[in-house]
Amino acid sequence: MTNSEAMQAVDNIMLSVVNSDVKTLRDASKHILDAGGKRIRPRLLVTVYQALGGTDYEYAAPVAAAVELVHTASVVHDDINDHGVVRRGRPSVNAIWGRTFALLTGDFLFTKVYELMAPYQDLNIDLAAATVALVEGETMQAAAVKENNFTREVYTEIIARKTAALFRSAATLGAKLAGASNEVIDAVGVYGFNVGLAFQIIDDILDLTADSEQLGKTSGIDLSQGRGYAAAYGGNGQAGVAVAVADDGDPMKKIKERILRGDAINEAYEQARNLRDMAVGALVVLPDSAAKRELIEIARVVVDRDR
Amino acid sequence: MTNSEAMQAVDNIMLSVVNSDVKTLRDASKHILDAGGKRIRPRLLVTVYQALGGTDYEYAAPVAAAVELVHTASVVHDDINDHGVVRRGRPSVNAIWGRTFALLTGDFLFTKVYELMAPYQDLNIDLAAATVALVEGETMQAAAVKENNFTREVYTEIIARKTAALFRSAATLGAKLAGASNEVIDAVGVYGFNVGLAFQIIDDILDLTADSEQLGKTSGIDLSQGRGYAAAYGGNGQAGVAVAVADDGDPMKKIKERILRGDAINEAYEQARNLRDMAVGALVVLPDSAAKRELIEIARVVVDRDR
Repeated sequence: MTNSEAMQAVDNIMLSVVNSDVKTLRDASKHILDAGGKRIRPRLLVTVYQALGGTDYEYAAPVAAAVELVHTASVVHDDINDHGVVRRGRPSVNAIWGRTFALLTGDFLFTKVYELMAPYQDLNIDLAAATVALVEGETMQAAAVKENNFTREVYTEIIARKTAALFRSAATLGAKLAGASNEVIDAVGVYGFNVGLAFQIIDDILDLTADSEQLGKTSGIDLSQGRGYAAAYGGNGQAGVAVAVADDGDPMKKIKERILRGDAINEAYEQARNLRDMAVGALVVLPDSAAKRELIEIARVVVDRDR
Repeated sequence: MTNSEAMQAVDNIMLSVVNSDVKTLRDASKHILDAGGKRIRPRLLVTVYQALGGTDYEYAAPVAAAVELVHTASVVHDDINDHGVVRRGRPSVNAIWGRTFALLTGDFLFTKVYELMAPYQDLNIDLAAATVALVEGETMQAAAVKENNFTREVYTEIIARKTAALFRSAATLGAKLAGASNEVIDAVGVYGFNVGLAFQIIDDILDLTADSEQLGKTSGIDLSQGRGYAAAYGGNGQAGVAVAVADDGDPMKKIKERILRGDAINEAYEQARNLRDMAVGALVVLPDSAAKRELIEIARVVVDRDR
């Protein structure tokens, strides 16, 4: 099975598992899943699995689907909290079906993760822990904005939990499904974690520099909410945007100008490239293969993308 | 271990598992858990387990805790959608921490269910299915209100999924943990399902007849949202409250008066008593024991309670 056949299998599982007889859940779930998205987390899992000699896609694909459903559930709920109206180039579930149904659709997707993972006893706890971390990271983010405490340290802890933990989990699940040694599991975990950090830093920069059409989702949300890379790095090391911009006419615009003028963007790319290099370095334990080269390529694209 | 010791163990597990280092999640989770609640679902599980000879509470209590956390997560999210400000005699999570944190707290609790259940491979799928049913039932309810289609048939389907499925799951999980035969598992499933239906019918009636202080949660929500027993039975068999009360001065008050005057309340109690009797009848397969008598008592209290 090629990588793209495996990814098609993952998509088929996701669409099949959300096929509820409750129309709104089915329609809203298919709406967000059909829109695509980058599918980077299941692709990490499948490609690590391949790189370690895994060939039983019927065994591995449901786990990859579960990982992507965790992410999908979280973005459906994010769009409620952030009032995001565009997601994956389409109106968000929240924008079409409203808050009540968006909340229930997110719950439904989280529950389907749990259903998909039920047969995988030893792997179950990994994905559960990553999902806990994701919710904790989202909560730390909202709390840091509220408490005006969006420092660089807090930012790093937030992105480690809300993004990098699930990336690490995708990679380690791929390795465990392939029956890898603990040494290899740890190494691909380092790869996944660093790719995840780089991914989120670039995401936050694109939120500042790209427009909604290019991103396929509402842009500028971080800035409007006083969080993200802008909040942590735009205040010249101060506590955060909210402090830095007090008593300003159009504070968000000023902050954005300051960031785009200053070194924050360059610094972010520098960080992301360092993380990418650490990720790729961790793959030294894997034998050369097309799948290994694909993992290296994923790490590169995460940094070099423009959407 | 006595029943009340076992229930204390369940509470301890729930409190321990939500002990995140993220303060808001920890505080909000403890707030809702410390408030108590009836704990009827874990009590069903523990009592069925005892009635079938189960004695290993370290094995059974985490599953009972997981069942109660499913319910707790769902009420935290319900209070967002319904603007419920009182829950278990306290301000709701939504009322204290706001929508964003209430949404994340519910997600956190759902995720902790998944973490607690990870080691229980064969039981996992049962609780996952019941949780899917719960979310489907909540969605059907919101859709029926929106589509003005709150018929008696739809009402029955809604309460079967949003409430009775989890009650059945609590009972069958207790039986499976005790290593019961399929015949016994099915029988306690019938017991749990019918107790769950009766519980929800009485809940809906109390929502109409009791006040918030007595219930420990915001009362009259069903009526204000055009749903529940009132919507299904208050419209004289018509489509629902929204149709029945069109062009009325204070439509909800009129509907409530009509229901309290008419036969709907008596009919509801009649239904609940029949369901209770079916539930108790299903227990014939169990040998007599203090735990069996406790199960019969639970079914009685579900119907006879006033809060």
